[in-house]
Amino acid sequence: MEELKSIKKISEAFAGRKNELYGQKDEGRKVFGLFCTFVPTELILAANAVPVGLCGGKEGTIPSAEEILPRNICPLIKSSFGFKKDKACPYIEASDVIIGETTCDGKKKMFEHLAEMTRLHIMQLPHFRDDRSAKLWLAEVEELKKLIEEETGNKITEEKLKEAIDKVNNVRKLFYKIYELRANNPSPINGKDSLKLFQLSYLLDINTIESVLEDLVEELEERVKKGEGYSGKRILIAGCPMVAGNTKIPELIEDTGAVVVGEESCTGTRQYENYVEGYTIEKLADRYFKIPCACKFSNEERIERIKELVKEQNADGVVYYTLQYCHTFNVEGALIEKELKKAGIPIIRVETDYSESDKEQLKTRIEAFVEMI
Amino acid sequence: MEELKSIKKISEAFAGRKNELYGQKDEGRKVFGLFCTFVPTELILAANAVPVGLCGGKEGTIPSAEEILPRNICPLIKSSFGFKKDKACPYIEASDVIIGETTCDGKKKMFEHLAEMTRLHIMQLPHFRDDRSAKLWLAEVEELKKLIEEETGNKITEEKLKEAIDKVNNVRKLFYKIYELRANNPSPINGKDSLKLFQLSYLLDINTIESVLEDLVEELEERVKKGEGYSGKRILIAGCPMVAGNTKIPELIEDTGAVVVGEESCTGTRQYENYVEGYTIEKLADRYFKIPCACKFSNEERIERIKELVKEQNADGVVYYTLQYCHTFNVEGALIEKELKKAGIPIIRVETDYSESDKEQLKTRIEAFVEMI
Ligand code: SF4
Ligand code: SF4
Ligand code: SF4
Ligand code: SF4
Repeated sequence: MEELKSIKKISEAFAGRKNELYGQKDEGRKVFGLFCTFVPTELILAANAVPVGLCGGKEGTIPSAEEILPRNICPLIKSSFGFKKDKACPYIEASDVIIGETTCDGKKKMFEHLAEMTRLHIMQLPHFRDDRSAKLWLAEVEELKKLIEEETGNKITEEKLKEAIDKVNNVRKLFYKIYELRANNPSPINGKDSLKLFQLSYLLDINTIESVLEDLVEELEERVKKGEGYSGKRILIAGCPMVAGNTKIPELIEDTGAVVVGEESCTGTRQYENYVEGYTIEKLADRYFKIPCACKFSNEERIERIKELVKEQNADGVVYYTLQYCHTFNVEGALIEKELKKAGIPIIRVETDYSESDKEQLKTRIEAFVEMI
Repeated sequence: MEELKSIKKISEAFAGRKNELYGQKDEGRKVFGLFCTFVPTELILAANAVPVGLCGGKEGTIPSAEEILPRNICPLIKSSFGFKKDKACPYIEASDVIIGETTCDGKKKMFEHLAEMTRLHIMQLPHFRDDRSAKLWLAEVEELKKLIEEETGNKITEEKLKEAIDKVNNVRKLFYKIYELRANNPSPINGKDSLKLFQLSYLLDINTIESVLEDLVEELEERVKKGEGYSGKRILIAGCPMVAGNTKIPELIEDTGAVVVGEESCTGTRQYENYVEGYTIEKLADRYFKIPCACKFSNEERIERIKELVKEQNADGVVYYTLQYCHTFNVEGALIEKELKKAGIPIIRVETDYSESDKEQLKTRIEAFVEMI
């Protein structure tokens, strides 16, 4: 299969992103670093500032992080912390403020250490999905708005907010479209390229992402028309984020000849699903509040959504992926496994970190799973 | 040293507790099982119901729990879950409702599984210490009050609440008194007995606890007067709860000849410190809201409190104790180590589970620490 032009384009854009970002800073635009999809980027865009996703998908910075953090916390947390500790990430260094959130124990407490090295603003993400929690979350979003306005000196007017909401909603629409196209058999894009798309879209300028996605939709439509693409057993990945630097799971899956047709992940559906359904701060808060992350207590929405995704993407089975020591996704995984089995959906659960050491073992397990379904 | 009569008495009371509890149930009193010190037991007592702490300090039920839960979560969570799964704990089985809370990732998500086996009510414990969070917590406490009233059919009147608050405050006063007495050198009680006291007081009837503590205070005063007690290097334990069944750390410490003079723990200071400063539900909620548990974001209060405790108890050093895979206490431990070292307070951090396998290694480390300080 030939390389997709738009995937090539996104790689090129990424190569130039560092300079572009520092250029944007030179123009006086503020940069906000983000660790999680719960942060409403619309507010940052509406203040003419730049949101940039901070990843932490590389093994290299983990030993340095482990000088302070315990070994047995999730590699994503250690990797991100190490990047800041070692000043090894241009995006972190470019950030005027880093916005964190109280999602999981490890991240919440890691921020207490990070606070000694950088300017942080932490949002309280409530555990529950009830009205009380929605109200608290709205107050947190309003506080973030104030902070962004103060930091940038730009007022987030109704008009600016509307513009930003429309812009991000349009990106969401394009991701939805790509998922629809991936429902075809053969799938016009594989999981490796798709993951690259999600990973880099956290880092790139919103206008670049929008234009790349538009091109990609066209390319994929073309392929679908011609019946071109990837055949093989169709796999939905569900679980923890796979942030830039970490491509282990889709690689392992696709090396068996299977094809990844969806990612129920923050580098996947949780990144784009659900539109902001209006132009108020309430509607904005609401869209983010509903993200079905395992950090929420009583997360039935997520289980249902995974079942739906299997149908929508015509998947043959689910690889449930947990980053090592991520308690929320891991414990929820046991519930999901039970529910999926009840529904007759094949599922395999894998827990892994960023190292190479378990690759052979995972390969064997995933191969057996793909063969079996 | 002769055995303390009141410690013998508490062991005897414990031997009869199961029958006593089922007797209380036969009288029509409802039993509420608790997993955490954040639950305001005053509300349960004010409704003439019985609070009982559910421990999970034994290794035996862990393999059964691991059939559902991941291996790499804290042994306390696995042990408690296993006790319910295997119906192996008379206190859990006696509970009409179990009250849980969103303290840490593992527990929060374990409750989703436990909900399939028992009647649960979960309280949302906010991450932050700000006013917004205090308000949310108050609403949670009010909801709990309603639930208890409905469940018991008893109204929690102002008078009943006042009575319960006075009762529990008096128990707190007695624990304060015991800590004061332990500040003496020699210390009139060792860490093994002290831990037994804290562990069993979660399980016993409040009247029994009150009377045992009154006797104990007298006994300890007597010892102090005579200059009797335990000498040796003086150790403050700080960290995770050591619930009934788990006596590993004080045993290891005191086997070296040192003496434990305080426990900054939920089986220790977090159980009794701070009075409810009034008779309203607001004042009640407030006392619990302020518990300096590592599950809170930005927990400076705890660091300060540990430093104070070292002074108050005339401790020579701190053994910081984390249950394996407990991210909050573990990551916060790194901050505390740094702060204590800055203040010139010797500290050693140990991470362990309920198994015997690391005992030798821990013994060597703790011995070296005790010798060094
Ligand atoms: S998985 Fe949850 S906590 Fe992690 S980035 Fe996504 S939304 Fe945030
Ligand atoms: S993968 Fe899990 S443990 Fe790691 S940052 Fe995300 S929610 Fe936290
Ligand atoms: S350590 Fe924290 S979460 Fe655990 S029982 Fe104590 S207060 Fe509750
Ligand atoms: S010891 Fe830590 S991980 Fe275990 S239940 Fe308590 S707070 Fe949670």
